[in-house]
Amino acid sequence: MTNLLTMNQLTIEEIQSILEDAEQYRLGKGWIPSDMRFVSNLFFEPSTRTRFSFEVAEKKLGLQVLNFTAEQSSVQKGETLYDTVKTLESIGANAVVIRHQEDHYFEDLIDKVSIPIINAGDGCGHHPTQSLLDLLTMKQEFGGFQGLTVSIHGDVRHSRVARSNAEVLTRLGATVLFSGPPEWQDSLNPVGTYVDVEEAIEKSDVVMLLRIQHERHDQKTNAENYLNEYGLTKEREKRMKKDAIIMHPAPVNRGVEIDGDLIECERSRIFKQMENGVFIRMAVLKKVLQQTEQNQEVIKHGIYS
Amino acid sequence: MTNLLTMNQLTIEEIQSILEDAEQYRLGKGWIPSDMRFVSNLFFEPSTRTRFSFEVAEKKLGLQVLNFTAEQSSVQKGETLYDTVKTLESIGANAVVIRHQEDHYFEDLIDKVSIPIINAGDGCGHHPTQSLLDLLTMKQEFGGFQGLTVSIHGDVRHSRVARSNAEVLTRLGATVLFSGPPEWQDSLNPVGTYVDVEEAIEKSDVVMLLRIQHERHDQKTNAENYLNEYGLTKEREKRMKKDAIIMHPAPVNRGVEIDGDLIECERSRIFKQMENGVFIRMAVLKKVLQQTEQNQEVIKHGIYS
Amino acid sequence: MTNLLTMNQLTIEEIQSILEDAEQYRLGKGWIPSDMRFVSNLFFEPSTRTRFSFEVAEKKLGLQVLNFTAEQSSVQKGETLYDTVKTLESIGANAVVIRHQEDHYFEDLIDKVSIPIINAGDGCGHHPTQSLLDLLTMKQEFGGFQGLTVSIHGDVRHSRVARSNAEVLTRLGATVLFSGPPEWQDSLNPVGTYVDVEEAIEKSDVVMLLRIQHERHDQKTNAENYLNEYGLTKEREKRMKKDAIIMHPAPVNRGVEIDGDLIECERSRIFKQMENGVFIRMAVLKKVLQQTEQNQEVIKHGIYS
Repeated sequence: MTNLLTMNQLTIEEIQSILEDAEQYRLGKGWIPSDMRFVSNLFFEPSTRTRFSFEVAEKKLGLQVLNFTAEQSSVQKGETLYDTVKTLESIGANAVVIRHQEDHYFEDLIDKVSIPIINAGDGCGHHPTQSLLDLLTMKQEFGGFQGLTVSIHGDVRHSRVARSNAEVLTRLGATVLFSGPPEWQDSLNPVGTYVDVEEAIEKSDVVMLLRIQHERHDQKTNAENYLNEYGLTKEREKRMKKDAIIMHPAPVNRGVEIDGDLIECERSRIFKQMENGVFIRMAVLKKVLQQTEQNQEVIKHGIYS
Repeated sequence: MTNLLTMNQLTIEEIQSILEDAEQYRLGKGWIPSDMRFVSNLFFEPSTRTRFSFEVAEKKLGLQVLNFTAEQSSVQKGETLYDTVKTLESIGANAVVIRHQEDHYFEDLIDKVSIPIINAGDGCGHHPTQSLLDLLTMKQEFGGFQGLTVSIHGDVRHSRVARSNAEVLTRLGATVLFSGPPEWQDSLNPVGTYVDVEEAIEKSDVVMLLRIQHERHDQKTNAENYLNEYGLTKEREKRMKKDAIIMHPAPVNRGVEIDGDLIECERSRIFKQMENGVFIRMAVLKKVLQQTEQNQEVIKHGIYS
Repeated sequence: MTNLLTMNQLTIEEIQSILEDAEQYRLGKGWIPSDMRFVSNLFFEPSTRTRFSFEVAEKKLGLQVLNFTAEQSSVQKGETLYDTVKTLESIGANAVVIRHQEDHYFEDLIDKVSIPIINAGDGCGHHPTQSLLDLLTMKQEFGGFQGLTVSIHGDVRHSRVARSNAEVLTRLGATVLFSGPPEWQDSLNPVGTYVDVEEAIEKSDVVMLLRIQHERHDQKTNAENYLNEYGLTKEREKRMKKDAIIMHPAPVNRGVEIDGDLIECERSRIFKQMENGVFIRMAVLKKVLQQTEQNQEVIKHGIYS
């Protein structure tokens, strides 16, 4: 694995290997690089969870962290993303983690930059480490994915994870249901079935709520209406299956996608997901940095010569 | 000590213990945690001294530092302080240091968050590590507090430290005088006596000036008038007691609260206070992290079982 | 060397010694401080290369880094640069790296602050570590400076490096040519000759392009016209001497100072310059920190007593 850009680039075997490595890191074991390595975090959009989760993962791996913010950089003088990454590579970064507001920003970088790129979210596109931490949380709960029913609720069209989660869960043998306002359905989504919210809630092992991304919408959604029509109310939670769990990528709009009282209820894995995010990111950093090390070994010992 | 929120929560014994630990750190000794620990600094208001003083303290203790800024975080998407702290806790923070513009912001957090909170200033409320470093500076100078006279000059009503310093100094056996413009007197203050500036200066062992917080006032204070009427002029400094010292929490408005030439004069302990701030913060971090370690030991070894 | 403020303060011997130390660091060797040391980076203007290059250099030396940004500091409350640096010194910084928009900002600091100051760029004034990394890049290429011809192209008047590079290169035995729009000539420049762009390109061993600093100009330059009249086009590149190289301090305005296709061409040392920046900054940090250690030894062992 040289980059992590989207979920569909990963095979089932690679996904399982990342989940296993993450579980090892959770248990306090796992690979740590032997020499000093630098990782730069480039966040062009606000973030708490993903940004600090990467930083904690990097520091637990003993990596040196370079926190880049666009506001204080030469991006202010018009420097492009490509030139910025190339600069960080030149001064010693061994990998970059990037969140950017443009879909597929990474197309301009791959094959031109020689250090690994980890996508921490591109526009309304992808967010593979979020998908992976969602998978880890489900695997911890149910042991696997075969036969699971997962419903994804809400703003499917603008979500970075809905489409890739649906695709990977289907590949892993789960059934995916969608539910939410008709205007937010995603006609490009090749897998999953749209059903009524009540049906989705009652059939699911995993009720996965999506955040309404007010910052990507022109009109403010009416919170109370949304909760009653499409969200997880206390009443609906009672009709969930016996061992079913609640997930949400967060930040949660309390009282919109979910009744505020349910966020820390027994079924909720919302904070568990955040915990798992650190271990997933450690596992992903391991994969890409080990790959680089192997490439360097090859160069050093002239296996290609 | 599980949190440090206000001075009045601390007993005399706890205060003395922190001052002693701080003195040990100043001498290059003291407890360092054995395993990797993360502390997150959340500053919702600008700060140089307090923020970097905490960062230096954390790094001297070998802690891993997560510097959170509201501008680059999900606070921009409406995430609450509670959810932010809960997130940092989930991804591995072992303690949080918070400065926030709201008085008593911590009421929403205590009993709901399980990691220690260190208050680095709340609105016009409290700033306990500033009080502690003020106490350390006086103790280094005079050996103790019994019988000391401390005058606090200026914007008492908007000050985070005036009220709590007055309270704790009285508890420790010192006499507290206040002086300053009548409109900035603090009628809620239960201890201390308001006196004329000349009387305050002449009677004090410690002349403690407060910063005029222009950013909290609508009207700009006339600098020269203020200095002559209420500030520490060179003329007044000459009438101070033989061994009396000058203190100021800084940043100083040069030529307003104090004549610029006096800031680094022989009596001034203004930069000494900053030095002491690092040792006090090391001591406070020690207390709360050791408490957490003990709690974890109790859980691990089932003393409660 | 107690500070690094401008190039003209350095003797030829000091420059050669920095270049040699930098080369040692490039080879993975060199001095590392034995005890914990703090360096604070104060950038009052946006920067990617210089800022992160210093941070990487500091971390490679095992130093503790304090990243100061004006926006989140007490500069917002009106605190001066002097008081800010004095504060960082009081809380434990062993050196400061400063970029500031004012020419000669450091005049207010030297002789009043007792920790070393490394100038990372002052207004349109100086940028000594950029000059040093330029020299290192040339030395790696040509072994030395005697007899070299270096042409400096473009916005000479607003450049932080043009004047000091011209001065130091002349001292080192090189011939300096200038070329560019007449309105950007620098009448204060005591060395170097203005020539036509074609002549400059054909005679030079080093073609050094300067960035058009749009942010310092009122009128936007017409990109295409500039490239054709004064910039490095593909056509002009073909007329360069056989082993001549291209340099640019970056960020590059692609298609303005230089045709975009030439940035990563075989002659280009633009990313090599960035790599060298890290080693130069390690060498400079070594010089100033070792000097401080020696001063402290002198104080400790009473050589002056």
